[in-house]
Amino acid sequence: MRFISETTSNGVSERLFILDDIPGVLWSPAEATGSRPLVLLGHGGGRHKKDPRLVAGAHRYVAACGFAVAAVDAPWHGDRPTTEEGERLVADIGERIAAGEPIGPLMARYNAVLAPRVVPEWKAALDALQDLDHVGAGEPVGFWGTSMGSGIGIPFVAAERRITAAVFGLAGHYGLAEAAAQITIPVEFLMQWDDEMVPRDSALALFDAFASPEKTLHANPGRHADVPAFESESSLRFFARHLPQGDTSATAA
Amino acid sequence: MRFISETTSNGVSERLFILDDIPGVLWSPAEATGSRPLVLLGHGGGRHKKDPRLVAGAHRYVAACGFAVAAVDAPWHGDRPTTEEGERLVADIGERIAAGEPIGPLMARYNAVLAPRVVPEWKAALDALQDLDHVGAGEPVGFWGTSMGSGIGIPFVAAERRITAAVFGLAGHYGLAEAAAQITIPVEFLMQWDDEMVPRDSALALFDAFASPEKTLHANPGRHADVPAFESESSLRFFARHLPQGDTSATAA
Repeated sequence: MRFISETTSNGVSERLFILDDIPGVLWSPAEATGSRPLVLLGHGGGRHKKDPRLVAGAHRYVAACGFAVAAVDAPWHGDRPTTEEGERLVADIGERIAAGEPIGPLMARYNAVLAPRVVPEWKAALDALQDLDHVGAGEPVGFWGTSMGSGIGIPFVAAERRITAAVFGLAGHYGLAEAAAQITIPVEFLMQWDDEMVPRDSALALFDAFASPEKTLHANPGRHADVPAFESESSLRFFARHLPQGDTSATAA
Repeated sequence: MRFISETTSNGVSERLFILDDIPGVLWSPAEATGSRPLVLLGHGGGRHKKDPRLVAGAHRYVAACGFAVAAVDAPWHGDRPTTEEGERLVADIGERIAAGEPIGPLMARYNAVLAPRVVPEWKAALDALQDLDHVGAGEPVGFWGTSMGSGIGIPFVAAERRITAAVFGLAGHYGLAEAAAQITIPVEFLMQWDDEMVPRDSALALFDAFASPEKTLHANPGRHADVPAFESESSLRFFARHLPQGDTSATAA
């Protein structure tokens, strides 16, 4: 893990890094020392590690909870090269959307191609992040990712026992129900009641599939991209509740 | 409205009152003066105005937000006399539950008998409460009621323009969808994913029926009575967001 830049604003440090050619970003309290809970963010399709929504969430988590927060670019996204395979899958999905056809099975194929590549990348990133003094290996780790962030994130969390709480959503059961059934940690699941990309029944079926004794579904009116702002605060409270801090008495600069 | 007792604990005043033979309770900050938002609470079937869950919620709303909070006993409940009609309806529902049969249509009949009696009672209570100096008529009013509290509360809120935000839940669409379709204020709707009294599809259909541009569904695993404690805090935040306080600078004792 090689850090290539650091900027600080409003007490939040943002450091860009490269890990085995994968570009990533780590947010943490400025001049933090001592271990702390970590939240990994998975960006959506066509987005990247510094999507404005991720940046805003990261700043809130750092400022309100003293967490460390990290994101990496998925293959074909952000600062990573695209490929013919990636472009073809995205074009196929675009054609389906334009034709008003269901995209669930195609999204499942897209995720099925990406997830086996991303899961080891995110595990390696988690290893490297937990080696840092101001993150540490003994603290709880959360995951937040909706849409493609769930398409990849649900298989990741199913395979990664270090994650202890997760926010998912904007995804359906196609290709994901089996992984969801392996997840038993607390889950907050967002759905859009009028999602043009995820049929209502498919989102409800995915929520139903999680084996977690504590899971909570938040459904709001509107289309795929219309998640209301108050859900960001709800995610924050969810993580504050489920990622208890150990010794962070050494947090302050 | 005749007050018959007052007790104070932890800075919260609790006053029992009688209004036209209907027993009620009003919680407010001790020695409060000046107008403030009001939240009306509707208790569940077989419960009463001082159900422990209502009391706990009322104390939180008063302590955290400075609201006034009130509840009255529904007919056949609490300190009000039961009747042959009420006992027969409750017995019918009990037999259905014991037989493992759906109770939606019977609950609808029960609510259809109660609602036309309760709606004018609650309107009269709201009139009387808004005449009090430390409640006032110019502040927003919220409603919270699940199960029977929604069975009656949804027709009430549909008919009462003074209510500006409501928490409902644990109810299905039978007999309520039409009233829900007249409601346009912000709604937070609770459902239990494994509710033995309200089929999943019926609860989702009721959520779907609200005409409110802002409505949010919170679904959690478990049976009818298993609503998790964190939903109480969510209701509090919902009211804090939607019942803005006017001039409450004169709140303190």
